Amino acid sequence: MAERAFQDQGSVHHCHGCGAANDKGLQLKSYWSGDEAIATWRGEPHHCGGTRENLNGGIIASLIDCHSLNLAIAHAYRAEGRAIGSEPRIGYVTANMNINYLKPTPIEALIELRARIVKLEGRKAWINCTLSAAGQIRATGEVLGVRVVWE
Amino acid sequence: MAERAFQDQGSVHHCHGCGAANDKGLQLKSYWSGDEAIATWRGEPHHCGGTRENLNGGIIASLIDCHSLNLAIAHAYRAEGRAIGSEPRIGYVTANMNINYLKPTPIEALIELRARIVKLEGRKAWINCTLSAAGQIRATGEVLGVRVVWE
Repeated sequence: MAERAFQDQGSVHHCHGCGAANDKGLQLKSYWSGDEAIATWRGEPHHCGGTRENLNGGIIASLIDCHSLNLAIAHAYRAEGRAIGSEPRIGYVTANMNINYLKPTPIEALIELRARIVKLEGRKAWINCTLSAAGQIRATGEVLGVRVVWE
Repeated sequence: MAERAFQDQGSVHHCHGCGAANDKGLQLKSYWSGDEAIATWRGEPHHCGGTRENLNGGIIASLIDCHSLNLAIAHAYRAEGRAIGSEPRIGYVTANMNINYLKPTPIEALIELRARIVKLEGRKAWINCTLSAAGQIRATGEVLGVRVVWE
């Protein structure tokens, strides 16, 4: 992971889930792994769900959402041969997100995310993302992103 | 809303999205409205998404998730004629969540949530939830919750 994270290159600035400039956010960092995007993240005790032992489902949704859209953004810049964050800025917003929670995610575990683009059509990108911890997939997400122009 | 919120009655304690005991969480408060559950919530600037003007999609997912499961929990207690939070404690965990983001949600707006149970079968509850702001539905969620026993 010698290359800087998409977010540190300016893919997104202020987002609660992944903006490097949001010091109260989750600050997810996404990187290329071939044509896929990978990220690792570790929660704090207050990111728990219904029990203190497990990661919150909304936090899981946030991580999957941000990681998936960051892949779409990074892919779009790469396809245009431009640096991430260069003008005009490329944004993606979520149109649909469908998450299957397969098993509990231990709160203290290192979270691993892996996303890949499964379809591109016009402004739309369909991304599949897995969230793993302790060697097991805990949740899977299907995210539909729509490209927009960000100021 | 004279009655206390489900969360303040002990439906959930520590959850990042809605636990009253989680002072770093979103502290969503859900109430009965007939057979439905309603809630209002207002974000802070750091809860923004890709642009600072709009609420983060992961936060929207958190609110829909927590509000929907709290309805399932409250309904289960009511069906048993028991006070929310009484022993043995009733919990629900999310198995699937499918969210359609219909339009941006202004970050400064008061968020309104409304959830209703559409199907119950064994330990499973299917809940539909809308998230509105400024008089318009901004996102809809379908949540499948599975009943569990919480210690």
